[in-house]
Amino acid sequence: MVLNLASKSMALTYTEISTMMAHPESDLMEECLKEDLKFYFMNPCEKYRARHQIPWKLGLQILKIVMVTTQLVLFGLNNQLVVSFKEDNTVAFKHLFLKGYSGVDEDDYSCSVYTQEDVYESMFFIINQYHRLKNISLGMLGYEENEDDRIGLRVCKQHYKKGTVLPSNYTLNIDSEVEIDCIHLDPQVLNSENSGHWMNSSFFSLEFYRLLQVEISFNLKGIDLQTIHARELPDCYVFHNIITFDNKAHSGRIKIYFDTEANIQECKGLHVSGSSQKNTQYILMFDVFVIVSCVTSLILCTRSIVLALRLQKRFTRFFLEKYKRRVNDADRWEFINGWYILVIISDLMTITGSILKMEIKEKNLTNYDLCSILLGTSTLFAWVGVIRYLGYFQTYNVLILTMQASLPKVLRFCACAGMIYLGYTFCGWIVIGPYHEKVRYRAPSLFHQWSKYLEHKDLFSQELP
Amino acid sequence: MVLNLASKSMALTYTEISTMMAHPESDLMEECLKEDLKFYFMNPCEKYRARHQIPWKLGLQILKIVMVTTQLVLFGLNNQLVVSFKEDNTVAFKHLFLKGYSGVDEDDYSCSVYTQEDVYESMFFIINQYHRLKNISLGMLGYEENEDDRIGLRVCKQHYKKGTVLPSNYTLNIDSEVEIDCIHLDPQVLNSENSGHWMNSSFFSLEFYRLLQVEISFNLKGIDLQTIHARELPDCYVFHNIITFDNKAHSGRIKIYFDTEANIQECKGLHVSGSSQKNTQYILMFDVFVIVSCVTSLILCTRSIVLALRLQKRFTRFFLEKYKRRVNDADRWEFINGWYILVIISDLMTITGSILKMEIKEKNLTNYDLCSILLGTSTLFAWVGVIRYLGYFQTYNVLILTMQASLPKVLRFCACAGMIYLGYTFCGWIVIGPYHEKVRYRAPSLFHQWSKYLEHKDLFSQELP
Amino acid sequence: MVLNLASKSMALTYTEISTMMAHPESDLMEECLKEDLKFYFMNPCEKYRARHQIPWKLGLQILKIVMVTTQLVLFGLNNQLVVSFKEDNTVAFKHLFLKGYSGVDEDDYSCSVYTQEDVYESMFFIINQYHRLKNISLGMLGYEENEDDRIGLRVCKQHYKKGTVLPSNYTLNIDSEVEIDCIHLDPQVLNSENSGHWMNSSFFSLEFYRLLQVEISFNLKGIDLQTIHARELPDCYVFHNIITFDNKAHSGRIKIYFDTEANIQECKGLHVSGSSQKNTQYILMFDVFVIVSCVTSLILCTRSIVLALRLQKRFTRFFLEKYKRRVNDADRWEFINGWYILVIISDLMTITGSILKMEIKEKNLTNYDLCSILLGTSTLFAWVGVIRYLGYFQTYNVLILTMQASLPKVLRFCACAGMIYLGYTFCGWIVIGPYHEKVRYRAPSLFHQWSKYLEHKDLFSQELP
Amino acid sequence: MVLNLASKSMALTYTEISTMMAHPESDLMEECLKEDLKFYFMNPCEKYRARHQIPWKLGLQILKIVMVTTQLVLFGLNNQLVVSFKEDNTVAFKHLFLKGYSGVDEDDYSCSVYTQEDVYESMFFIINQYHRLKNISLGMLGYEENEDDRIGLRVCKQHYKKGTVLPSNYTLNIDSEVEIDCIHLDPQVLNSENSGHWMNSSFFSLEFYRLLQVEISFNLKGIDLQTIHARELPDCYVFHNIITFDNKAHSGRIKIYFDTEANIQECKGLHVSGSSQKNTQYILMFDVFVIVSCVTSLILCTRSIVLALRLQKRFTRFFLEKYKRRVNDADRWEFINGWYILVIISDLMTITGSILKMEIKEKNLTNYDLCSILLGTSTLFAWVGVIRYLGYFQTYNVLILTMQASLPKVLRFCACAGMIYLGYTFCGWIVIGPYHEKVRYRAPSLFHQWSKYLEHKDLFSQELP
Repeated sequence: MVLNLASKSMALTYTEISTMMAHPESDLMEECLKEDLKFYFMNPCEKYRARHQIPWKLGLQILKIVMVTTQLVLFGLNNQLVVSFKEDNTVAFKHLFLKGYSGVDEDDYSCSVYTQEDVYESMFFIINQYHRLKNISLGMLGYEENEDDRIGLRVCKQHYKKGTVLPSNYTLNIDSEVEIDCIHLDPQVLNSENSGHWMNSSFFSLEFYRLLQVEISFNLKGIDLQTIHARELPDCYVFHNIITFDNKAHSGRIKIYFDTEANIQECKGLHVSGSSQKNTQYILMFDVFVIVSCVTSLILCTRSIVLALRLQKRFTRFFLEKYKRRVNDADRWEFINGWYILVIISDLMTITGSILKMEIKEKNLTNYDLCSILLGTSTLFAWVGVIRYLGYFQTYNVLILTMQASLPKVLRFCACAGMIYLGYTFCGWIVIGPYHEKVRYRAPSLFHQWSKYLEHKDLFSQELP
Repeated sequence: MVLNLASKSMALTYTEISTMMAHPESDLMEECLKEDLKFYFMNPCEKYRARHQIPWKLGLQILKIVMVTTQLVLFGLNNQLVVSFKEDNTVAFKHLFLKGYSGVDEDDYSCSVYTQEDVYESMFFIINQYHRLKNISLGMLGYEENEDDRIGLRVCKQHYKKGTVLPSNYTLNIDSEVEIDCIHLDPQVLNSENSGHWMNSSFFSLEFYRLLQVEISFNLKGIDLQTIHARELPDCYVFHNIITFDNKAHSGRIKIYFDTEANIQECKGLHVSGSSQKNTQYILMFDVFVIVSCVTSLILCTRSIVLALRLQKRFTRFFLEKYKRRVNDADRWEFINGWYILVIISDLMTITGSILKMEIKEKNLTNYDLCSILLGTSTLFAWVGVIRYLGYFQTYNVLILTMQASLPKVLRFCACAGMIYLGYTFCGWIVIGPYHEKVRYRAPSLFHQWSKYLEHKDLFSQELP
Repeated sequence: MVLNLASKSMALTYTEISTMMAHPESDLMEECLKEDLKFYFMNPCEKYRARHQIPWKLGLQILKIVMVTTQLVLFGLNNQLVVSFKEDNTVAFKHLFLKGYSGVDEDDYSCSVYTQEDVYESMFFIINQYHRLKNISLGMLGYEENEDDRIGLRVCKQHYKKGTVLPSNYTLNIDSEVEIDCIHLDPQVLNSENSGHWMNSSFFSLEFYRLLQVEISFNLKGIDLQTIHARELPDCYVFHNIITFDNKAHSGRIKIYFDTEANIQECKGLHVSGSSQKNTQYILMFDVFVIVSCVTSLILCTRSIVLALRLQKRFTRFFLEKYKRRVNDADRWEFINGWYILVIISDLMTITGSILKMEIKEKNLTNYDLCSILLGTSTLFAWVGVIRYLGYFQTYNVLILTMQASLPKVLRFCACAGMIYLGYTFCGWIVIGPYHEKVRYRAPSLFHQWSKYLEHKDLFSQELP
Repeated sequence: MVLNLASKSMALTYTEISTMMAHPESDLMEECLKEDLKFYFMNPCEKYRARHQIPWKLGLQILKIVMVTTQLVLFGLNNQLVVSFKEDNTVAFKHLFLKGYSGVDEDDYSCSVYTQEDVYESMFFIINQYHRLKNISLGMLGYEENEDDRIGLRVCKQHYKKGTVLPSNYTLNIDSEVEIDCIHLDPQVLNSENSGHWMNSSFFSLEFYRLLQVEISFNLKGIDLQTIHARELPDCYVFHNIITFDNKAHSGRIKIYFDTEANIQECKGLHVSGSSQKNTQYILMFDVFVIVSCVTSLILCTRSIVLALRLQKRFTRFFLEKYKRRVNDADRWEFINGWYILVIISDLMTITGSILKMEIKEKNLTNYDLCSILLGTSTLFAWVGVIRYLGYFQTYNVLILTMQASLPKVLRFCACAGMIYLGYTFCGWIVIGPYHEKVRYRAPSLFHQWSKYLEHKDLFSQELP
């Protein structure tokens, strides 16, 4: 779909049309069509001057921008709280469970260990901290059930199978098949009198030469109470934590990854008294008002497009009758105002987004992400739409037309430079990369990330039997 | 008010006027007015050539710039000392009272703790350090009275009320109402033989699940002796320190904020002997001299404007009589020299600022901030005023006129780009923000700060009963 | 060799030729030559329109770009693994052997010590860690033989000879000749019951005033098992580690350098069972396919060049006969299409690189570096070659011609500015350098590095007797 | 003196002259002068074509650039060693004497302490480390005599006098006069059996409320042996170390400054045997060769200028006789070639610098700084001189002339923008500065540094009685 961004082409079309119609044998119908066309390609100011038609649509758009932006800011502040709650929890978990965590991740992994002793200490530290969680944690955390409906830690180690031992002792026998061993430690076991007994189990004597990774996973539940302050119901979270000791590279360095996934869930067994939810109601009313104005704008714009299509049909028929020629496609597209389509899309997104937002507010839904995409994109469209009105002022129009004209040249240059850059990237990555840190990580990060992702997927599918 | 920044338009007006007056029936009065007008729109050099009038005003302005700048530098160095004293004290307090403070703040908070043990240790560390303050601090610090006229620490904890307990034990009952509990610890209590007794009080057993924040506040007094070196009387300060353990997010991470507010107060019970205050007197004399020259400049400029208004009236009357037409507004504004108004404003600010500066020097006032705004802005105006004289040279005039001409185009482009940027900002913040650290903190910092500020205000108003 | 990057000059030549041939007495042969020339300077689209010749070469090039890029990415990911294995091992070694290593190198050295005690501790730490290696290291490391076929550490100290002692005690006697003392510590010695005995040997009482450097070197072997995961045979490595305590500056600061060199070697005594190498075969097949397509492209391009040379000869002869003049050199070069030569070079490199890659895959060769240079450069050439096809579109051609035209001016300006910059660099380095950190290290890094390198070489040649 | 940077104006002059002389009554003398003038304003290529005069001067200049640059690089590498020796020593001293030194300075001070205990510990640490220096230091350090010819530490504390005590106890009495107390601790005292006795002396009980600063100063001697390696004699150094505990701000934070000043001195009692100084001789020969070529260049250029002045005199006389007019100043300046003067200055500096360099090499002088300024500047001039030869090529000449023409416009714009910037700087510093860290330290750093410097000077003059 082509967005005819400025009225230049319209003006041209209009003059074209005028000259076409300047024939003497024009009858009443032609005169009427001419008048309608003229009016159709006017801007709001001219319309007002011509027929004293008040620009309702223009006013509605301006009102909508103000409202949509306000709504976005309100939602954004709310969303910020949710995101920062998740992040703060992740940081807190890292400090609680990772031994010697410095406060910043080293790379995509949190920290790394270099000696066997450190590996054991880090593992036992995690298990002990999990055990003592209620006594050390500052948050409202509780143990939550695993996927297999048991409460506790799940420690899995993944290693190559031992190969068949050959007579000569000096050879290393490894089977490339991967084995997975798991153990389940529930709080009762950890709590029993002979605590620390589990440490001596054969499971925890690792054979580093064939170890691929150790994965400690556990679920925790938490409550985000800060929403109480805004007189809303609190959100409940389940945190799926996975700590991975990655020895896949066998390079003498085990990288410790900490992955946490926070899901919002329905709160059970939580009673909040004294919360008067008047605040929420005002916001819901505001959302309803936004929806109403968007629906109105939607109806007005749809009507405009329908009228435009009807006018186009009339014009086409007239043109065919009079000049025995079909109107060409470009001229027909002139009748479809791209801005209206933009507004319609924006309106549809705002309506969907607002409904989602209200549902989230009512704690029926929790998908903040979809809602933020809908509201954000619709606001972007609304603001971009302002450029259309700037196009009505002559000086700005020149600016917009210049930008329109120069765009293809810029794109063309980029295409040309892009070729060389792409070649350079591939070449630079592979030739210079291994010897220079910056090139290695910047240029091919796309491929790197992508390959890692694939590899990761691959491993996961192997893990689960 | 319009500042006619260059003499171009004046020149135009002048030629206009000349042609208007080129009529043959000009009598003596007209000739005289013509002469006066011609002289009025001359620049200092031309005036000197025409009537050998020495440009006093020009000289005075140059002298003023030198003096005002010197004064600003002197005041600035003094102000620097005050600011750095406050800051050094803040840094020292953070090292004294925050356990494990690394020397740099993490964000807007100083440090953060993640375990219950650390919270207690940090709290008790503050109280103990406060107790031993005289023995550890390097500065001249003393205990100062609180707002309620008592010496000592005030520890306040803020938490949600416990809700009514339901029979089932597995539910969490919270009332969204906020309760505040305070305790006062004066040095005597801390000093008593069973020291540490207070630690075991029930107040210090925090229930983290409903804790909102703990606030430890105390006042200290200090003396800034370094002014003695400059042969001035020392300033005395009262530091209001508030250390906040913020658990509002309930995310398992308690952020520790350290806020200190330093107020300059009258020094009591401090005797400094041997300080001969001759230095101060020279500076006061210099300030007086600045005031005198500013008053002179003020009078001269006011006189010029009065004369200009009189000339304008004469010209208007003459024009009305001769051409039966009113002089239009733009031409009348030509008579008001915008630069003079700039100078007058600058002078008024310098005079007020200088008087303030003298009062501060005499320790009668302490509002460095207002004084720095007045002196700083007046100096800025004085330097900007130099551009006017550059406008008299032809080559520079071209430059200035070009800048004047291109400004609207630049602004127009900015407006257009701004629309897209605003839309992008809102959209980017909400859509990309939560997943990318940089976007989150940069784009909406305005809203973020603002919302935090509001929230903060809100809490404070709730705190005080 | 000149690459005629755009078809502009060709077009000119073509019109030239046409006008030359516009004489009436043109016979059949001339007509034929004219036709051939016309066809030769056409681009693929025109050729297709003229003789319906399908552009095989163009299609092949596009196919080749896709394949070469895929191959490069596959090889690059593989190469990345090798490089990161080496680097991770280096980092792990630094953490294992350097006492108090912070995780980042200070400059080109890893860390530095300032007291005698620290020097001894660092040295003994290395020796002890080497001894306990099997018990602490996470990697699959084993002791490897030195150059002199012994397993163990080699500690060498290098110092100035003591001069002849003069009667007066207060003088320092040093001979500028350098002496080297070495000791060999094998694991058995370190393991013997009176462990720590070696510490007390006179070798380890250093005389710092004449000490130049201590060098501890040892070899370790390791296995990169992660290739098993990709169903390939593992690589075996030998790490030559050299830790140097550099006291050459005698400035009270001994810098500790850690140098490690990893060589891939044939794996002995390693049996991997269960590895089905199907994956490798697909990749080998792909490589073969790349080679085949490159050979085809090579043949086609060579043929084109041969045909072009033949055409050139025909044209030269005809021109000589008809106009009794030799065709000038520039016109003769027009027949040689630079792009073809680029493609031929690229193809030759791809073929060599692919063969190397297959050998590396089969573990017959290990020189990743040469292979990456060959494949990388050939891919760069292939992408740059795309510009040629862009030159066929008129708008892009303008772009390319503009770039060609502006290049000499830009170079000329750079030359001029370069003179001043060079002078500034030399002057700035020597005059400002010693007093400003940034200038010192940026400007003359070339000379610095170079001189250090020379010095290093020099020392090494002295070391070996 | 004006440097006529391009030959444009010369060419103009030349055509002027030609037209002047185009009169028919030209006699032999005139013809001869015309010829000489024509030749004088030719460039080397034209001269060669006209009279087959080989451009000795041009060749000499090119040779000189190569030699001067080589010399500079050689000297620079040497200078680098000296500078890095001083710096490494400073770093080593900071690690040896400052307790808890992190390895990087905090600002212009090395570290800061916040409690009374830390102050005492830091002070005693310095004294103890000084005492044990021989046993801990890695460098060849020895105690050196102070200014008062005694070996040992000098601890000076500077504080305000206690004022007369008033009856009421709650007042603080301070006299603004500054008192200085010093103590001398020689190694013997520190070494005596009751070591640590000095710690309990009343001198070391500091009264922080009136303490201004504590200054610990001591001298050490060291030897830079690394020159032996380059077969030169070693340099001996005396390090004047001053450690200052600065409490002038009385802000609860004592900043610790470490200042070290290294002076090269004659080595006594050091015998280096076995050093064959052949290397030095080659470098000295090279320096002599540089001097010879510079002297030659100097003579040639001086001769050219003398000839030019003579030619100018002839021309002036002829012009006066013929046209009865004096040649104007601008035309007379055309005869003086600015480039020659640049070359002469450069030559004089190189000669002086080379002689200095030889003296430094022979250990007769040690002022590396002056030598580096002379050699550096002369090299800069030599490289800038290359631009002159570029001016002979037409395309480069255009470039140079354009740069010459646009310079005044650029400067004019800068002047105009500078005014506004200056005003903004002053205003911004004083108004925004105290509330924003970046502005505070950037804009007024000039004044800040300058004021600190003055203050420092002032204190020093007070210290010495």
